[in-house]
Amino acid sequence: MPQHAYTDLTTHFARIGRIRNALGILGWDKDVMMPAGAAESRADSIATLDVLCHEILTAPVIAELLDRAEAPAGSWQAANLQEMRRAYLHAASVPADLVDAMSRAASRCEMAWRAARREGDFAALLPTLSEVLDRTRDLAVVKGAALGLSPYDALLDQYDPGTRRADIDPVFAELRRDLPALIADAQAHQAATPAPVLPTGPFPVPLQEQMGRRMMMALGFDMERGRLDVSAHPFCGGAEDDVRITTRYEDDDFLAALMGVIHETGHALYEQGLPHDWRTQPVGQARGMSLHESQSLLMEMQVARSRPFMDWAAPLLRAAFGGAEADPAWSADSLYRAVTRVRPGFIRVDADEVTYPAHVLVRYEMETALVDGTLALRDLPEAFNAGIHGLLGLTVPNDRLGCLQDIHWPSGAWGYFPTYTMGAILAAQLRQAAFRADPAIPSGIAQGDFAPLLGWLRTHVHSQASRLSTPDIIRAATGAAPSTDAYRAHLRERYCGAE
Amino acid sequence: MPQHAYTDLTTHFARIGRIRNALGILGWDKDVMMPAGAAESRADSIATLDVLCHEILTAPVIAELLDRAEAPAGSWQAANLQEMRRAYLHAASVPADLVDAMSRAASRCEMAWRAARREGDFAALLPTLSEVLDRTRDLAVVKGAALGLSPYDALLDQYDPGTRRADIDPVFAELRRDLPALIADAQAHQAATPAPVLPTGPFPVPLQEQMGRRMMMALGFDMERGRLDVSAHPFCGGAEDDVRITTRYEDDDFLAALMGVIHETGHALYEQGLPHDWRTQPVGQARGMSLHESQSLLMEMQVARSRPFMDWAAPLLRAAFGGAEADPAWSADSLYRAVTRVRPGFIRVDADEVTYPAHVLVRYEMETALVDGTLALRDLPEAFNAGIHGLLGLTVPNDRLGCLQDIHWPSGAWGYFPTYTMGAILAAQLRQAAFRADPAIPSGIAQGDFAPLLGWLRTHVHSQASRLSTPDIIRAATGAAPSTDAYRAHLRERYCGAE
Repeated sequence: MPQHAYTDLTTHFARIGRIRNALGILGWDKDVMMPAGAAESRADSIATLDVLCHEILTAPVIAELLDRAEAPAGSWQAANLQEMRRAYLHAASVPADLVDAMSRAASRCEMAWRAARREGDFAALLPTLSEVLDRTRDLAVVKGAALGLSPYDALLDQYDPGTRRADIDPVFAELRRDLPALIADAQAHQAATPAPVLPTGPFPVPLQEQMGRRMMMALGFDMERGRLDVSAHPFCGGAEDDVRITTRYEDDDFLAALMGVIHETGHALYEQGLPHDWRTQPVGQARGMSLHESQSLLMEMQVARSRPFMDWAAPLLRAAFGGAEADPAWSADSLYRAVTRVRPGFIRVDADEVTYPAHVLVRYEMETALVDGTLALRDLPEAFNAGIHGLLGLTVPNDRLGCLQDIHWPSGAWGYFPTYTMGAILAAQLRQAAFRADPAIPSGIAQGDFAPLLGWLRTHVHSQASRLSTPDIIRAATGAAPSTDAYRAHLRERYCGAE
Repeated sequence: MPQHAYTDLTTHFARIGRIRNALGILGWDKDVMMPAGAAESRADSIATLDVLCHEILTAPVIAELLDRAEAPAGSWQAANLQEMRRAYLHAASVPADLVDAMSRAASRCEMAWRAARREGDFAALLPTLSEVLDRTRDLAVVKGAALGLSPYDALLDQYDPGTRRADIDPVFAELRRDLPALIADAQAHQAATPAPVLPTGPFPVPLQEQMGRRMMMALGFDMERGRLDVSAHPFCGGAEDDVRITTRYEDDDFLAALMGVIHETGHALYEQGLPHDWRTQPVGQARGMSLHESQSLLMEMQVARSRPFMDWAAPLLRAAFGGAEADPAWSADSLYRAVTRVRPGFIRVDADEVTYPAHVLVRYEMETALVDGTLALRDLPEAFNAGIHGLLGLTVPNDRLGCLQDIHWPSGAWGYFPTYTMGAILAAQLRQAAFRADPAIPSGIAQGDFAPLLGWLRTHVHSQASRLSTPDIIRAATGAAPSTDAYRAHLRERYCGAE
């Protein structure tokens, strides 16, 4: 009974989905609400639920049902079945003791990383990071064998199903070739006009929060199915029908928090736009981290850091913070120039749109070489710093500002970094297609009407969930395969005065 | 290998404990943080984790291990094993379809209750409440058969392990006999002095919250392992090492929220004082709802609504809210009289210390008769109102102010009400014993030093967790079996001027 087998599978996966929703709330709470003394107990609860999901997913009955299940070709059911098989292979290929070893190594290394980063002491991180890398390579090998992928592709596939190194390498090679000239051109172009003068604060946090909410709602965030809160590191989390974003506020700079809120709102709109009928099933989840990042960067980089957006937002911001109408710092032009300023720096999360890919390229080159074994971990700082120097012309003064800055590697998230820049590329391509498809989309942005844009994204991206691969979603949405054309045109146009 | 069997059991129960911690946070979040649109999804997640706990607890391996497991008589291990057996019997005795039917009936009835209460329409509640009562009686019969208890005792045992109707009946009969005279005496006694004049507000919520936190910390609440937040109905929830209490604020009355915070702090101190080494095991949990309520009422009724407490608190409160030093409304005497005012009313949760037991007596008589089948549900309003009239002399004008006011019955919590008054009785007995044991305890209260009191409670109650029965804990702590002597003396002394 292949149809019954499929139906039984949906029941098991719905159960996993509901536990994952619980985990989403527990994870959010950990970063937003939890008192410090509960860290150990919370880690135990989260680990217990993770293991339960793993047990349900790898139980013998799932393999039997997957063997027998069938669904009509081309249907959502068929896509769901394919995602079930992918999830099963990712989970079942990893022996329980490796799951455990990976999780423990990552916990130990994250702890060590907090101290090592503070002290800028890479040597102190080396033993635990070495263990994480070893377990990551073990994981990559067993997953790769099960999925028919190279080890690094198996890691990538965890975050961005279907994306392979063969897709990324040519794109990143092109960027590596063009980026130094682009950065130089952008800086030269910007040097021709005076530096923007920023409005002077303080900008009280309650007002910043109020503006953040207003922008979220304008972009289409449904406050009945989500929240905005504060955490040390901004993120989008939560659960189905309960998408929670966070930001952090500085009272002398409202733009950082606002752009952060808009970025996370892009992620949240994707989650809120996933098809309700498939919400507990694998096919109903967001397609992958590249497409996810394309949604956040579309809202932040393509929309909010644009001149038309600032034409609408500048007077609202000025009024909200009580700025003088005559103060040129509050003009749309000045705010636009402030949020598009190009300045090479050491810290990835503070990087502007033009220099950001340099940070990703270096990390991608490092992690592929580390996973391949062509770079030894002890040589990472030197290689990392050389990479930054080559692309940004900066001399990294210490590892705190270098290879110790990100939590990804210590926490075991290898294969994640390239999705940031793949997302930026897709964001540009999607924005270009949307603008061409409906003139109401660009004209709406300048008037604070984002409904046409959201409608287009709902139809072409959000509602597709994981029914197609990322390239097929892009092809269907834009009429073309994923390419860097729109991205490069966008950067040249915005930063180098190209038409 | 009886010792191995016991160890294996602790592993299974630790897993359940960790899922229960997750449920504690999800439940807190539902009432404090969750956006409205997530209600259905959250209910699914909570139900899924509840079912998982039930599956783990009733798996065949647990019965086998319980058959074989042994632990040294009198040890914590032996008490743990006994609690495991009790938990197993409570869970395994109920067939899965009855668990499901009960849960669905309660969900439907809770929904119907919200509307029925608003409209004061008992007839509208009757069908779903009838279903809840039927399923409750089914549950009581099967649990009673497994535990060797009468149906109502089986319900009681869910909330207050070991407490039986035979323990409650004589205590409540005594109260029923004495209460009307006590209420009359208290009112006559209070009528001899002018009514207290309350300080006039508004009392800004942030200041109320600040005072609430200050009092919590003074009483010994560990903010590193807990939180204070706002919810529609105050409660104490959360998880191990993460005890979360809530309150609600009215800006024209700070005393209600403050007394609420102190009440929930009493619950929270019990949870925070449970033995860390046993935190994931059944024996490491709070003993039962009577003892739990004794801890909240000890802090609220015995301590905070006392004159010595107000000697300490009144100047702090006056200063916090900017009251004038000369304003007699801010005197310790006035505030003390305000928080001990006796006034019969319709609503249980608003009742004073003297009339509160009347509300419980009526509910206890109703629910025992309904479970026994000697009262028909359609006759509940009339019987309820007759009960209130008999004890408080009030004529209930509508069911909103009568039998529709509480969520307990609609939600399936039958057998819970008596624990409120049993808790009040134990609170008085424990307070009396503590004051006798160490003169630093009463003298500390008048100076805002609650450490001696908390130390005594930690030693004699909190650290005992579920190692002994409630009566045995009381006996060990106070040197006497549970009795109403201290409670009646306390009420006579505080409210009737008896020495």
